[in-house]
Amino acid sequence: MNSFIIKGTFVHTLTKEKFEIKKDSYLVVIDNKVINIFDEKPKQYSQLELIDYTGKLIIPGLIDLHVHASQYRFRSSGMSLELLDWLNTYTFPEESKFEDEKYAKKIYSTFVNELKYGATTRACIFGTLHANATLILMDELENSGLISYVGKVNMDRNSPEYLVETTEESIAATKFWLDEIKLKNYKRSKPILTPRFIPSCSDDLMRGLKEIQKSYNVPFQSHLSENEKEIEWVKELCPNSKNYGDAYNQFGLFGGSCKTIMAHCVSSTDEEIDLMKANGVFVAHCPESNINLSSGIAPVRKFLNKGLKVGLATDMAAGSSPNMIKSIAYAIQVSKLYWRLVDNTCPALSISEAFYLATKGSGEFFNNVGSFEKGYEFDALVIDDSDIAFSTEFSIEDRVEKFIYLGSSKHIVSKYICGTKIF
Amino acid sequence: MNSFIIKGTFVHTLTKEKFEIKKDSYLVVIDNKVINIFDEKPKQYSQLELIDYTGKLIIPGLIDLHVHASQYRFRSSGMSLELLDWLNTYTFPEESKFEDEKYAKKIYSTFVNELKYGATTRACIFGTLHANATLILMDELENSGLISYVGKVNMDRNSPEYLVETTEESIAATKFWLDEIKLKNYKRSKPILTPRFIPSCSDDLMRGLKEIQKSYNVPFQSHLSENEKEIEWVKELCPNSKNYGDAYNQFGLFGGSCKTIMAHCVSSTDEEIDLMKANGVFVAHCPESNINLSSGIAPVRKFLNKGLKVGLATDMAAGSSPNMIKSIAYAIQVSKLYWRLVDNTCPALSISEAFYLATKGSGEFFNNVGSFEKGYEFDALVIDDSDIAFSTEFSIEDRVEKFIYLGSSKHIVSKYICGTKIF
Repeated sequence: MNSFIIKGTFVHTLTKEKFEIKKDSYLVVIDNKVINIFDEKPKQYSQLELIDYTGKLIIPGLIDLHVHASQYRFRSSGMSLELLDWLNTYTFPEESKFEDEKYAKKIYSTFVNELKYGATTRACIFGTLHANATLILMDELENSGLISYVGKVNMDRNSPEYLVETTEESIAATKFWLDEIKLKNYKRSKPILTPRFIPSCSDDLMRGLKEIQKSYNVPFQSHLSENEKEIEWVKELCPNSKNYGDAYNQFGLFGGSCKTIMAHCVSSTDEEIDLMKANGVFVAHCPESNINLSSGIAPVRKFLNKGLKVGLATDMAAGSSPNMIKSIAYAIQVSKLYWRLVDNTCPALSISEAFYLATKGSGEFFNNVGSFEKGYEFDALVIDDSDIAFSTEFSIEDRVEKFIYLGSSKHIVSKYICGTKIF
Repeated sequence: MNSFIIKGTFVHTLTKEKFEIKKDSYLVVIDNKVINIFDEKPKQYSQLELIDYTGKLIIPGLIDLHVHASQYRFRSSGMSLELLDWLNTYTFPEESKFEDEKYAKKIYSTFVNELKYGATTRACIFGTLHANATLILMDELENSGLISYVGKVNMDRNSPEYLVETTEESIAATKFWLDEIKLKNYKRSKPILTPRFIPSCSDDLMRGLKEIQKSYNVPFQSHLSENEKEIEWVKELCPNSKNYGDAYNQFGLFGGSCKTIMAHCVSSTDEEIDLMKANGVFVAHCPESNINLSSGIAPVRKFLNKGLKVGLATDMAAGSSPNMIKSIAYAIQVSKLYWRLVDNTCPALSISEAFYLATKGSGEFFNNVGSFEKGYEFDALVIDDSDIAFSTEFSIEDRVEKFIYLGSSKHIVSKYICGTKIF
């Protein structure tokens, strides 16, 4: 448990609508959590160490609500296909390699290293169907200081013979994986149930996963309404479901008592959106991924207007990298094109709204995470933007916007996750 | 005049449709121009110095067909407005500062320095209406080794009182600027006539510029059909023009004997496209700018199908930076959304097509520039992509795609422009 005072210029979003900026202020952390931000150095905490980042911007860590660690190697290549062809051509062959634990260690350690020194502080991550490789990923994440939910993927149908389980194998491997995690006593790596998507998972498997979800009390993540052909396929596979979301919901795996993230939601109908709202499902918005696989643009403004829980995600390797800074820029950019090209009743996201999605929006999945409010776990990026030419001549809001479009890991000079200094 | 042999892996696009890749080959440059690429070290040139970049990728330099140097300072900020409001709120106040030559020197030297160490080898650049500041920009460019066309901007109507000329002043200042350039004997910085856009320029000014264009024999650049309100405004201002392009064409300033670049062309009608084709007008495609100012997506596939001359551009500061690598990625990305959201008869750009736009497409404006064909001026970027994780395990095509999405100036270890080594 760490306690200290940090001095710097704090920028966060209590609400989506605007930034709160505390220039040259003092943030007190006690036992890893924020006490408050003070204009003057607070005398009552004079015994605490003061860490001085005067002149630097300090923002909450960015939280990636949907990313595929196993796709790291081929990120930024092979993005000329749509979802189903892309899975068969690039993704499934690559994921099959993770049966080899040495290969898993090589790729996952490189992936985790990039996350560690980048803007991401927490993430919800897909592994592969291999339980041991997924444990290796969780070991690497645990050692890095990053906080994560990680899923062993389930797939027992409509999958290539080199990357598929029987229903029984999938359920047994999932239990084995969860039991191993209990023995490991991770502090930071947590499991999350991860059936790939409805087309890859039989009804029996989904029923089995629901039993596991209840008995192990774990959350749930999957994909929803990303691509038109995928949605048509789900309709064929689940003729009795009202919509794609209902195909999860019929098994009790769509929010409610089962804390759930659904990635994409590009083509969600109003009915599906209402079901997500009623069940408190988190939407992981993946703006760059939805461009790269020609999926389209998710109607984020509608989600926000209806009060859905929405976070931001890279979805690497359909997103070109695990860089969450770029995801904020893409979220703003696609929302402008959505307004211009799709629906002019949906105004573009403001900078603070997109920033909120990447911090407090995604952070809500981790409970009190994503801002510097009292009681929130202290995740922070300390940013030196002095090499973004003339940055210091600008307002704090403008400096944040410049960081969103021009910033990279080289600007992050220090990073804290739940009160622990990572570097 | 420089002559040498370069060894490395060469990647370029003779045609849009595919990359030509010459692995571990020898490119001979004599008197700044490409002789050929040889599989083996050519004995007949054994007297030439051999520069060994084995293992590195060598691609043509990227050519930015439309960028505003004077907007460098506020790049990546203030992008929440559409064109006309953005000009009045951010751009015009900033451009007015370039009356101060010290200010011009400060901003332009920093801008040129970023270009020099980035992926851009040549550019077509807007200055401001200030002739002396524009000469400072041209001095900086000349000294950097970059090759450029640079324009003193003309604006004599519908402009703020702090950034406007009378018609006579505008014409006199343009002549003064062109006469000064003759005295300077630049080798690399060339002038290009640059009325801001139709709304900023009276008929008398346009007639005067046509006279100057003929007598000084200079090319021409401006903006076309970027934003809906702008287009409506041009219709009001030019009731006798058939379209926005025709409003330039009526003055003889739209291709033909007047070599012309038109930036944007987001909402060009078929009639306007046909006029560009007939007159050989170059389109400067500015994909990120057109997102950031919510302008939309230019129908590049249509331009290519009709055989227009098309190049790529950043349009900083409506584009977030002068980084042409990102522009290639954005060109691919917006073409996917155009196919998905606007017109499914227009397939997305392939990687080689977008690469071509940034090299040989833009390069055509500079004549034989943008590929490694015989007789082409040798512009090249030497790329070390070894820190893009696992890059060497991939095919050359995949490495190029990874560079497009993940590359930055730090990967450019050497740069040549017209046979001269820049670094």
